[in-house]
Amino acid sequence: MTTKKNLQNDAINSIRFLSADGVQAANSGHPGLPMGSAAIAYTLWKRHLKINPSNPNWLDRDRFVLSGGHGSMLLYSLLYLSGYDLSLSELKNFRQWGSKTPGHPEFGLTPGVETTTGPLGQGFANGVGMAMAEAHLAAKFNKPGFEVINHFVYAIVTDGDLMEGVASEAASLAGHLKLGKLIYLYDDNSISIEGSTDITFTEDQAARFKAYGWHVEHVVDGNNVDEIDLAIKSAKADPRPSLIICKTQIGFGLPTKQGTAAAHGAPPGVEELRKAKQNLGWPTDVDFYVPDEVLSHFREIKVDGGKAESRWQTIFEAYRQDNLELAGELTRRFSGELPEHWKDNLLDFETDEKGMATRKSSGTVLNIIADSIPELVGGSADLAPSNNTWLKSSTAFQSDNPSGRNIHFGVRENGMGSIVNGMAYHGGILPYGATFLVFTDYMRPAVRISALSHLHTIWVYTHDSIGLGEDGPTHQPVEHLVSLRVIPNLSVIRPGDANEVREAWISAVERRSGPTVLVFSRQNLPTIDRSKFASAKGLHNGAYIIADIGEKKPDIILMASGSEVQLIIDAGQKLADNGYGVRLVSFPSWDLFKKQPQTYIDSVLDPTITARLSVEAGIGLGWEKWVGEKGGILSIETFGASAPGNKLFEEYGFTVDNVYQTAKKLLEKGGK
Amino acid sequence: MTTKKNLQNDAINSIRFLSADGVQAANSGHPGLPMGSAAIAYTLWKRHLKINPSNPNWLDRDRFVLSGGHGSMLLYSLLYLSGYDLSLSELKNFRQWGSKTPGHPEFGLTPGVETTTGPLGQGFANGVGMAMAEAHLAAKFNKPGFEVINHFVYAIVTDGDLMEGVASEAASLAGHLKLGKLIYLYDDNSISIEGSTDITFTEDQAARFKAYGWHVEHVVDGNNVDEIDLAIKSAKADPRPSLIICKTQIGFGLPTKQGTAAAHGAPPGVEELRKAKQNLGWPTDVDFYVPDEVLSHFREIKVDGGKAESRWQTIFEAYRQDNLELAGELTRRFSGELPEHWKDNLLDFETDEKGMATRKSSGTVLNIIADSIPELVGGSADLAPSNNTWLKSSTAFQSDNPSGRNIHFGVRENGMGSIVNGMAYHGGILPYGATFLVFTDYMRPAVRISALSHLHTIWVYTHDSIGLGEDGPTHQPVEHLVSLRVIPNLSVIRPGDANEVREAWISAVERRSGPTVLVFSRQNLPTIDRSKFASAKGLHNGAYIIADIGEKKPDIILMASGSEVQLIIDAGQKLADNGYGVRLVSFPSWDLFKKQPQTYIDSVLDPTITARLSVEAGIGLGWEKWVGEKGGILSIETFGASAPGNKLFEEYGFTVDNVYQTAKKLLEKGGK
Repeated sequence: MTTKKNLQNDAINSIRFLSADGVQAANSGHPGLPMGSAAIAYTLWKRHLKINPSNPNWLDRDRFVLSGGHGSMLLYSLLYLSGYDLSLSELKNFRQWGSKTPGHPEFGLTPGVETTTGPLGQGFANGVGMAMAEAHLAAKFNKPGFEVINHFVYAIVTDGDLMEGVASEAASLAGHLKLGKLIYLYDDNSISIEGSTDITFTEDQAARFKAYGWHVEHVVDGNNVDEIDLAIKSAKADPRPSLIICKTQIGFGLPTKQGTAAAHGAPPGVEELRKAKQNLGWPTDVDFYVPDEVLSHFREIKVDGGKAESRWQTIFEAYRQDNLELAGELTRRFSGELPEHWKDNLLDFETDEKGMATRKSSGTVLNIIADSIPELVGGSADLAPSNNTWLKSSTAFQSDNPSGRNIHFGVRENGMGSIVNGMAYHGGILPYGATFLVFTDYMRPAVRISALSHLHTIWVYTHDSIGLGEDGPTHQPVEHLVSLRVIPNLSVIRPGDANEVREAWISAVERRSGPTVLVFSRQNLPTIDRSKFASAKGLHNGAYIIADIGEKKPDIILMASGSEVQLIIDAGQKLADNGYGVRLVSFPSWDLFKKQPQTYIDSVLDPTITARLSVEAGIGLGWEKWVGEKGGILSIETFGASAPGNKLFEEYGFTVDNVYQTAKKLLEKGGK
Repeated sequence: MTTKKNLQNDAINSIRFLSADGVQAANSGHPGLPMGSAAIAYTLWKRHLKINPSNPNWLDRDRFVLSGGHGSMLLYSLLYLSGYDLSLSELKNFRQWGSKTPGHPEFGLTPGVETTTGPLGQGFANGVGMAMAEAHLAAKFNKPGFEVINHFVYAIVTDGDLMEGVASEAASLAGHLKLGKLIYLYDDNSISIEGSTDITFTEDQAARFKAYGWHVEHVVDGNNVDEIDLAIKSAKADPRPSLIICKTQIGFGLPTKQGTAAAHGAPPGVEELRKAKQNLGWPTDVDFYVPDEVLSHFREIKVDGGKAESRWQTIFEAYRQDNLELAGELTRRFSGELPEHWKDNLLDFETDEKGMATRKSSGTVLNIIADSIPELVGGSADLAPSNNTWLKSSTAFQSDNPSGRNIHFGVRENGMGSIVNGMAYHGGILPYGATFLVFTDYMRPAVRISALSHLHTIWVYTHDSIGLGEDGPTHQPVEHLVSLRVIPNLSVIRPGDANEVREAWISAVERRSGPTVLVFSRQNLPTIDRSKFASAKGLHNGAYIIADIGEKKPDIILMASGSEVQLIIDAGQKLADNGYGVRLVSFPSWDLFKKQPQTYIDSVLDPTITARLSVEAGIGLGWEKWVGEKGGILSIETFGASAPGNKLFEEYGFTVDNVYQTAKKLLEKGGK
């Protein structure tokens, strides 16, 4: 007869061996984490996690993040066992082409996977973003007696996560913001790939997290369900974020590998696995074994979850009665639909020779649309006054004011990136993060995952070239534009004047299939006369003809993005004055242009015009595609320097005269 | 009459107002830090720092890092005052084209500048690398009574530094390694760009650093020289790394801006500055004012420093008597010269169809050269067994064994990068750092600075494409090769077999003008038959003809790097079998190829052969340059997927047949 205790053990062993069998079948993967932390996962999922496997999108579910994404089989086992739409055969197909069970969890691919993890520390910081989203939405939408948003964010985190700087950044902010709904279970197995964590990671983690303002609990035996359960209860009751440090043994049960680095990232081996099953009293003659009563036991999560969601639905319906508008807004927000008429208040910027920095017009546009799109929430990594990302109609998000829409991320770019991603994963928020373009280097891991996970996030990067001037080469992005353009599914837009800025923001807000990078200047750029030149709406095509000038049909195409657009207009005018026909192309976005039909592409970059010059104050790589073999690229192939921006533009050849001369040489060389 | 106290005050005010005048003259820069921490800098430089301004390269000098590089005028003021080769007119030329006083300190440009700083947290971690270098060299070279290496590493660090994850990573490792020579003065001014640090940075920094294993001191009044002095003394006596938290006021002296964010990053304004001078009893009628007795007072540093180095020289000469070889080695190491005959033991790898992963041959090569180059010191961010970067003839660098050459960096990529840079800045070590290629994203800030600072560092990146297989898209670099290739002054090499790996290491070791990235495969690659194909020494040219095959002269050029070289050999053979002439080009490095004379470039990429196909398992951007308008690019333009590597190569079209078919189509389309 199965006692409760036995059932519990069997349930934990089911997680353990489903995971290990998956790894062994794939002959690839990480058995150590799932085997060591199976009891932690069991306790959390069976006793605490508020989820409905029948509806992975229930907006008030608890969020669960497996920050150590390499332990993916743990998550897949849990998803299968608790009744998500993930079959046992998918588990058997772990890490195979076309399966829903890739090597590391991928958001959007597998029902119930809340985040894409694997690059360490990211999941840790995503959870912080989720908890911020929860706090913000709760403050915004809850009414007395109607807590329509009230859930926890849990994660299993690892040594590797805690060593990564991005986790430190996020942990410091989480402590500052007193995110009490955040509960992290630290799988403290004392093992990393190179061996015992003693070789490099001897800090006092508990003291460190207390210093961040966290509540810290210890679980001495990571296989003890009741001990884990108590710690989680205590964490739920504490108003601070909680770290529960659970002592575990990596690869628990493996006769020779348990507690060693050998258990981490390679299949245990058939014989080792067989003996592990034997050790723990598990059938050795069958793989992917789950006793019926264990499956029923786990599937209660689905039943209970359905009931929980029903209760929530009831509450939500009652809430809707009294709060029709709020309820509608909450639903709309989670659907990802934009409010109607959100663009109505956007303005045309007037022609202005002096103009303004695109970071400034961005601030203007952002503030206008933020008034129509309440889910726009974000901030800067301590550069808001420079990035112009402060929402004037709102306040700062703080522990005593979580409804504030302005986040002070601090000087924590990678943390900001992953937190912004976490808010997007959570839903209900359209988040943005900002810094200088050069510091995208600090947050590339987060930007990459936003693209991989198809997140609707907006990255605002200002101070976009040597044009920023005196701060010098450490602050001057040279290679950054192109190194963002090469990230798949990332839209990168560098508008050339205030009206293009408006369109760029529209593009970013409307692009729901992935993130957009908006690149803005520090220095003033003229606002182009749109009565003379084409409408800035052309931006949505990625590149567009702003004018064909001169007496005859174009001999040459000049193309530029951002601050260099005015340069080609002026140089083009000079060419036209000298009898040439000149096509001027504003080229804010390669990826948007590539999406256009070939007929459009050819209508802009007329294949019969082979004299083409691109002008962009950065590395020229990739412009070859657009200028062709007979074309020229005016670019910067070295680091910048410290001097006033206009001086640098001169020294690096970004002057009307140099563009003019370079174009003339091209024309003389036989472009036609 | 000038009392000692007055002189001290005048000295501090000289630093303060030289800095502020510099910023005001440039009408750009950051007065807040220098004005607030002038007394800290004064105390350190005048009472403790062991330097010889006449010889900025004295190898046993203390290292001083201004981690908050935005406070550069502080450093320039100190360098001028203490008598480095930096004139007052350079200070007046702050942030101007061609000056030695750029917006942020640049290593190599200004005598006495030990590190390029500005991107926050980098300097913090550089210092950790310097202290590791000191500990390592001391353990290696010192003899009883002859401490030829015995110096401290000091830094002024800021709120922004402490918020950055890279600093957390480095701090944790510094504590673990008990780097007692590391002494950081934290300019705790409670202000960041967005306002009071209370808005986002309320962690208990002292407790956090204690948790890392640091010794923490408090200075209540950051203008109190004696208090600062005592704290530094206590730090020097402590065997742990020290953080001295100094309460300061940003922009000290400015009547309206002191203690506010307004003092941080903009010129104070003429009137505000005049009043500040008035407040602090400083002449208002002259800028860049330094009283003669203050200059003499500071210039004592130069006199004392000269004596200190002389004493050290005497000791070193005595040391040399008994330790001729060691003394010679130490001198050689700091000269950057390589040992003679260091290449003698390198082997030719034999032809082998099965071959080996280039990460494996890299491990073999590295271990051979490490035995001849004792200054090769490095490690991995917890991936040594996968990166094959462990030096078998040495041990782990630990606090009780700092002579170990293997560093366990932990899962701290950005920290690793900046620490490796710090070791290179220090001198005496040729450092390397390793991780998976995809995780270069985490350490781009450090890689960029290594290139900007012309550091001789080596970056080892394995698991270089979708070929790594099952770990899936989070671990598969797709855009990383190109995004490294666009960093100026970074050499990027992706060798195609074991013998190219050997040459790649030679290139990296011999390149003293900047860093080299070595990119290796996870999966086995055949070792090419060099009796049939050209020597791997061609790698040094970046691209080289491995063979022209077929009956006739080449109709087509196939080019590839890394794991795709064998693919073009096989597909080329098939084309040759079908009557085509085929040129096979191994193309491991764009930057090395670009450095070749045009005649060589044309001899490889014969301009008359316009049918050209590049084959590389990553984003294709940039290959346009090499294949030309009639050429083709076989590339990957999306993220990868989780499946066995060979399956992925099939699915993404990296098969002999697909290369063959693609090449045929190109030929038929009218390449000739």
